[in-house]
Amino acid sequence: MADSRFFTVAGPFTLARLAEISGAQLAPGADGAAEFRDVASLEDGGPGEISFLDNRKYAASFLVSKAGAAIVHPDMAGKAPAGMALLLTKDPYRAYAKVAQAFYPVPATEPFVAASAIVDPTATIGAGCRIEHGAVIGARAEIGQRCRIGTNAVIADGVVLGDDCIIGANSTVQFAIIGSRVNIYTGVRIGQDGFGFAMGAQGHLKVPQLGRVIIGDDVEVGANTTIDRGAGPDTVIGSGCMIDNLVQIGHNVQLGWGCVIVAQAGISGSTKLGDFVAAGGQVGIAGHLTIGPGARIAAQAGVAKNVGPGETVGGTPAVPQMEWLRQAAVLSKLVRRKG
Amino acid sequence: MADSRFFTVAGPFTLARLAEISGAQLAPGADGAAEFRDVASLEDGGPGEISFLDNRKYAASFLVSKAGAAIVHPDMAGKAPAGMALLLTKDPYRAYAKVAQAFYPVPATEPFVAASAIVDPTATIGAGCRIEHGAVIGARAEIGQRCRIGTNAVIADGVVLGDDCIIGANSTVQFAIIGSRVNIYTGVRIGQDGFGFAMGAQGHLKVPQLGRVIIGDDVEVGANTTIDRGAGPDTVIGSGCMIDNLVQIGHNVQLGWGCVIVAQAGISGSTKLGDFVAAGGQVGIAGHLTIGPGARIAAQAGVAKNVGPGETVGGTPAVPQMEWLRQAAVLSKLVRRKG
Amino acid sequence: MADSRFFTVAGPFTLARLAEISGAQLAPGADGAAEFRDVASLEDGGPGEISFLDNRKYAASFLVSKAGAAIVHPDMAGKAPAGMALLLTKDPYRAYAKVAQAFYPVPATEPFVAASAIVDPTATIGAGCRIEHGAVIGARAEIGQRCRIGTNAVIADGVVLGDDCIIGANSTVQFAIIGSRVNIYTGVRIGQDGFGFAMGAQGHLKVPQLGRVIIGDDVEVGANTTIDRGAGPDTVIGSGCMIDNLVQIGHNVQLGWGCVIVAQAGISGSTKLGDFVAAGGQVGIAGHLTIGPGARIAAQAGVAKNVGPGETVGGTPAVPQMEWLRQAAVLSKLVRRKG
Repeated sequence: MADSRFFTVAGPFTLARLAEISGAQLAPGADGAAEFRDVASLEDGGPGEISFLDNRKYAASFLVSKAGAAIVHPDMAGKAPAGMALLLTKDPYRAYAKVAQAFYPVPATEPFVAASAIVDPTATIGAGCRIEHGAVIGARAEIGQRCRIGTNAVIADGVVLGDDCIIGANSTVQFAIIGSRVNIYTGVRIGQDGFGFAMGAQGHLKVPQLGRVIIGDDVEVGANTTIDRGAGPDTVIGSGCMIDNLVQIGHNVQLGWGCVIVAQAGISGSTKLGDFVAAGGQVGIAGHLTIGPGARIAAQAGVAKNVGPGETVGGTPAVPQMEWLRQAAVLSKLVRRKG
Repeated sequence: MADSRFFTVAGPFTLARLAEISGAQLAPGADGAAEFRDVASLEDGGPGEISFLDNRKYAASFLVSKAGAAIVHPDMAGKAPAGMALLLTKDPYRAYAKVAQAFYPVPATEPFVAASAIVDPTATIGAGCRIEHGAVIGARAEIGQRCRIGTNAVIADGVVLGDDCIIGANSTVQFAIIGSRVNIYTGVRIGQDGFGFAMGAQGHLKVPQLGRVIIGDDVEVGANTTIDRGAGPDTVIGSGCMIDNLVQIGHNVQLGWGCVIVAQAGISGSTKLGDFVAAGGQVGIAGHLTIGPGARIAAQAGVAKNVGPGETVGGTPAVPQMEWLRQAAVLSKLVRRKG
Repeated sequence: MADSRFFTVAGPFTLARLAEISGAQLAPGADGAAEFRDVASLEDGGPGEISFLDNRKYAASFLVSKAGAAIVHPDMAGKAPAGMALLLTKDPYRAYAKVAQAFYPVPATEPFVAASAIVDPTATIGAGCRIEHGAVIGARAEIGQRCRIGTNAVIADGVVLGDDCIIGANSTVQFAIIGSRVNIYTGVRIGQDGFGFAMGAQGHLKVPQLGRVIIGDDVEVGANTTIDRGAGPDTVIGSGCMIDNLVQIGHNVQLGWGCVIVAQAGISGSTKLGDFVAAGGQVGIAGHLTIGPGARIAAQAGVAKNVGPGETVGGTPAVPQMEWLRQAAVLSKLVRRKG
């Protein structure tokens, strides 16, 4: 289904193999030997293709889908259209992710150093790296194995990358120590000065920013996102964090493990997020706060005080999500009374 | 008036010719043979210059303007200062646009391929293209005629551009099929992975993003804006859309014809906008929604549910604009009562 | 303390010299001849290091700090731990900035022109400039002395830079006249077309953007920020402005002296800010407004009407800050009553 102009499909795989890959169970009656050649959406899938149902909003498409197989929650097993083979799991999206990764594996890095790339002679480059046209790698930088440094990307002096990292085209990385399997998208800015200065009527006075950006393993940083280096302490992005496009992360911010930061959110200086915090799109978090592990912040919320572990907050200034929704309801009622 | 360091003025044009170009009517008594050498603002304009009045906020400047001519709504004709020639039209801004385009035409593309540009031998490049220093064009890319690929821009493998496109300096385009006369500004990121993964305490699992970005004709995409490719379906930007700077467009989003998306707005995954939707600055639209054609969304609004055709909404969570304004008024009254 | 991988410390300095540098007073009993080799945080500082206390939120760290010296407000002098030497000043953060600048001076620009840089023969380049790999400087551009043009940055035709400017890697500057000591971070976009077009059902019609971007002296522009050029009048950034990352500044906007614009804020077209205005993160300001000198706009506020000199506003639509806080309190009370 994917445009062969851009994508190359692997496979085919038998349904039994896909069950194994995904950790889902073959439903009773499903033919494990049947071959599937691709993934597809419920709407577009045909006989040799496997789809999935996760968001129940799309259940109607499931009922009439012509896909040869689908990964679904056991709850939905009874509603499958005739002839559709099922793989059953309580987390269909995760299982689909594994199946789709099997059909569309990330291509292995083909080692290459472009003639136009500039690699400082004091930099160390691991085996199997790919350094694209116009990329620059500075003095004493240390690049792990099988990294890809994108076209016209800049890795400044002293930067450290682990293995299997991707630095997108036109990105800039300075003052940073980065783990393995980190995927920096295109146009990302890492390690520039934090926004630190002493304000004054006689002129704002810049405060040297003496920290670094430390990024763990298995992190993604979305396109055109900016992560400032610390002012003294470091800015820290924990392993497994997923950061979307156009996000701003200020100096000294710490993100725990597995945080999810949606597009255009901004986290002000010195704020600490625990593990697995989720911040919605366009969220703003003030500086010097602590956001507890597992907290969830609704899109566009403006967080002005600490948030406890596991709390869900919304609104500006942010309050517990239920209270925010009640505020909206009360306001709406007041207006209708006066209207 | 425009700085000749940066701009070259065409002309002069007679007032009759400017009437023809703009579709506006020569007002009674205006001398069609009079020559004009430039456009100017009402404040700065002099005898040989033509200005316009559109936003009535600036009417006071009109009354005392020394510009030799102005394009105005017929309503304003009686208020012109003595000696000012008028071109009359119900849409003065549109007429001014045509006149200004005549004085400052977009220069024709001068064909050129920089020695430092890297064009894959399997790419096809149309006649009359300009490929600036350090630009890279990947394998099997297809570039139409008279396109300009800016300095250090990256056109990845397989990308298709129609005719007369501009790709700004330092921009990156991947997994995209783009129409004609599309203007991608500087630092734009098109076609990177959507923000798609299965969340889980055992680690977030990336879902391969198998769609593309499809852009129609006559589209503008502002500086540092990000448009993710689809997850399976495509991300689609309809013809005639105007997208400002620092906008985020998530995977699978569809924009109809002529949508206007102001700076820093964000549209979450799988949301569909009908034709001619206008979203103000910093608007956020949640995922999986439908925004009807002609809908208008006030700046900073947070849209959490579908919006009907032609509706105007504001606030977070967004409600009909009149209701939102009443909410603000009611709140203000409540506070004054307690204060 | 700063990672020697990235930073080189100057010094040591005697306490008397640091008092002189910072303008702070040696506290009674402090040994002016004692030598200090670095700055450090209150938590991490040891005997040969000097720290500071500004935000009283961190006073507890001061009480137990092992730093050899600290810069503090005279109010705090009595609370210093035994053995800590003090420098006293009413503005400890500003004094610390000066001390930290002494320990970590900005390295002098080492003149260099990369072989891969493209400098148009009609451009003029001042003495002592550094032009990094892949940078491009266009026709008739005028670059002052000791400027640094970062890797793969683009300075378009006709652009003027004063002395001692820094243009970050992968940034793009067009249609701009820029003063001295201006620091443009990485990925910044300056001078592209403003978002100006005549909307219409028959297609939006672009209005030529005939102004420039004028930037004063001593300005910082954060990473991936976008500043559009004027439509006719210029976009003007006054001297001493500090602009954070991912900020949007529309066409014709004027910023007075010393404005501070925090990350992800957006200022719409033709709005004028007086001197020393501070706009918080994610603030949005509508177009054609006047914001008086010294006004302060709380984070995420949406400003829809003029703001007077020295006013502090918050909320969307923005109202005086005290009123906004009362609104939040009233709403909260209403909800609790109904809940």
